[in-house]
Amino acid sequence: MKEINGGVTAAKGFKAIGIFAGIKKDRKDMAMVASDVPCVCAGTFTTNVVKAAPVKWDQDVVYHYPTAKAVVVNSGVANACTGEEGYGYCRDTAAKAAELLGVSEHEILVASTGVIGRQIPIDLIKKGVETMVPMLSDSTQAGTLAAEAIMTTDTVKKEVAVELTLGGKTVTIGGMCKGSGMIHPNMCTMLGFVTTDAAISKEMLQKALSADIQDTFNMISVDGDTSTNDTVLLLANGMAGNPEITEENEDYQAFAKALNYVNTILAKKMAGDGEGATALFECKVVNAASKAEAKILAKSVITSSLTKAAIFGHDANWGRILCALGYSGVQFDPEKVDLYFESAAGKIQIIENGVDTGYSEEEATKILSEKEVTAIADMKMGEAAATAWGCDLTYDYVKINADYRS
Amino acid sequence: MKEINGGVTAAKGFKAIGIFAGIKKDRKDMAMVASDVPCVCAGTFTTNVVKAAPVKWDQDVVYHYPTAKAVVVNSGVANACTGEEGYGYCRDTAAKAAELLGVSEHEILVASTGVIGRQIPIDLIKKGVETMVPMLSDSTQAGTLAAEAIMTTDTVKKEVAVELTLGGKTVTIGGMCKGSGMIHPNMCTMLGFVTTDAAISKEMLQKALSADIQDTFNMISVDGDTSTNDTVLLLANGMAGNPEITEENEDYQAFAKALNYVNTILAKKMAGDGEGATALFECKVVNAASKAEAKILAKSVITSSLTKAAIFGHDANWGRILCALGYSGVQFDPEKVDLYFESAAGKIQIIENGVDTGYSEEEATKILSEKEVTAIADMKMGEAAATAWGCDLTYDYVKINADYRS
Repeated sequence: MKEINGGVTAAKGFKAIGIFAGIKKDRKDMAMVASDVPCVCAGTFTTNVVKAAPVKWDQDVVYHYPTAKAVVVNSGVANACTGEEGYGYCRDTAAKAAELLGVSEHEILVASTGVIGRQIPIDLIKKGVETMVPMLSDSTQAGTLAAEAIMTTDTVKKEVAVELTLGGKTVTIGGMCKGSGMIHPNMCTMLGFVTTDAAISKEMLQKALSADIQDTFNMISVDGDTSTNDTVLLLANGMAGNPEITEENEDYQAFAKALNYVNTILAKKMAGDGEGATALFECKVVNAASKAEAKILAKSVITSSLTKAAIFGHDANWGRILCALGYSGVQFDPEKVDLYFESAAGKIQIIENGVDTGYSEEEATKILSEKEVTAIADMKMGEAAATAWGCDLTYDYVKINADYRS
Repeated sequence: MKEINGGVTAAKGFKAIGIFAGIKKDRKDMAMVASDVPCVCAGTFTTNVVKAAPVKWDQDVVYHYPTAKAVVVNSGVANACTGEEGYGYCRDTAAKAAELLGVSEHEILVASTGVIGRQIPIDLIKKGVETMVPMLSDSTQAGTLAAEAIMTTDTVKKEVAVELTLGGKTVTIGGMCKGSGMIHPNMCTMLGFVTTDAAISKEMLQKALSADIQDTFNMISVDGDTSTNDTVLLLANGMAGNPEITEENEDYQAFAKALNYVNTILAKKMAGDGEGATALFECKVVNAASKAEAKILAKSVITSSLTKAAIFGHDANWGRILCALGYSGVQFDPEKVDLYFESAAGKIQIIENGVDTGYSEEEATKILSEKEVTAIADMKMGEAAATAWGCDLTYDYVKINADYRS
């Protein structure tokens, strides 16, 4: 497996585009991804009781129909808390795309992100679909336009693609995502779209995705707020010509590993581009009693407001990390814990068996001043490990969210 | 029952003092509260696995000894994650106070708040105790000095006292607390000290306190971080001369009601003085299916970073509140929810049955610009209600916590 250029258009037979449709003031706000041939589709969705209309629409498509052809996405308005009217607009959007692509409306997925509670401007959306369909292109640039069009408070586009060989055939997986605030995925993340030309059954595809998001998108948090719109869609069109994956064989493992790479990169890109963030903050928990406990501990650290603020201040305030491990709900012996900080600038042990090592604050600050910072907690309880990703808490997070709607 | 002036020295036979002992740079940093006669004592403590040394010391005193005489508190250093050495310093502190007061070391409670991971300067602490004992006074001013000395990032002292009549005798309950950051109590709050001259058995006192903190200190949050040092101590010396409360009779109910008043006021003072806060943010959930669910819903709203930032921006961004209700883990029908904002400037309905009422943004902003702001969520599920208190998320929260140790 190797990383290659591109995103959602990297895999054979996938086209995309991103445009300005007039929903936002002056930035691209609509995207489409479409396959030349029908795809099997897997999806994971928010666990929030308040589910946006497009989440409900996509759940219907993914759970009840065998194939999908395209995804229509808008940014600017979330189409959440919009009642029957909002759900009707999902249908209208899908119907318009279906008409132009010559398929059924139940082969069109939709996704929205932006302000909650407003109705989407359906006329602009339908016009946007009309504009996009003839522009769909398999170029790398078209994929990038789509990745840009789904951004809200994101500061950078988020794409990645990999190539692997299955049954002698080159298989490609590529993806894009958006997400910067209201990021505390539970089942999956804000919006993620992954395409592959692998031949794989719908059942195996969903299995691979559902397993993988537990270690990728579900392990990031920007602010602890689980969105109403979280959606990850994975489309596979079989055009690579590999022997179809229908069971958990070697090819499935190789595919799952490549998918994990793609999703991990996308998840980390989201965490590092958290609203107002100046640094990606990673927490690795090692030697925990179980994987489940390792995950709870790692997430507790990256979601701690006090720890996040300390990372912004490049302050090795390790008491806050031990405190966050302590209130996670997991039982452990605080007087056994070792803690390290690591970044491109080096690695330093901060506490040993629960107490200060007498480390150099100057060296710790240097390590914590990098763009990507890792805290490693050794629990000395067992052999399980987990990694979670977040970001620092900054003035800009407050600024962005105190007047997001204005 | 009526509110009166004062705090921990309001009840008969209680003395206090607060001084500068040299632990912090230039602010008062040690306090004592002592009773003329032995007290029964109740306590509730942090559920954090990482418990500070004074928490362990106090648990021993409260759980295993019949009476207590005094509390010694320092601010500046938390004495958390300090191993055997730190626990030894609790004993040294207690022994010094015990010697001067002529009691056993197991009648002395200790509490610390401040930076985690550093050892307390035990020589300064012991000298501080020597300074304080002869200064102990039952004046209102002495209580206030104590309330000031336990502050860390708090901007205002927090005291309250009430009077009630039990069996024809005037009984007084007074308290003080501190807490501004690392506030997400689970069992109780940062540091709270409540004194009363009521005659009440140790068992009934603990029962009243344990029940009450569930609706008071455990219903506030500043930043979601449950501290290693959370402690509430309630001392009763019986000097009011009321018939001793030994069962859940009418006097117990009256006492519990007065205690609830004191603890609610103290808890709200902490939430409103959350680090960097410009407003107290209250969430009332009404017509929930159960009390437990009402509490979970209310706490989910006041802990949402996005909602807190919107309150700072005086922005009626109700989608974030509905979102926070939605990811709380409680099941409900989002299309039945009504939401109101209320403050001294008025009350406005924002959503009805899950959708926008078409309210005036201008009026909503006016209501949200007050110092105390309430969101009321009507779940239309049952008849249970709960209230939680938090504060807005501001630039100053980030500032305070990015360089707390410097």
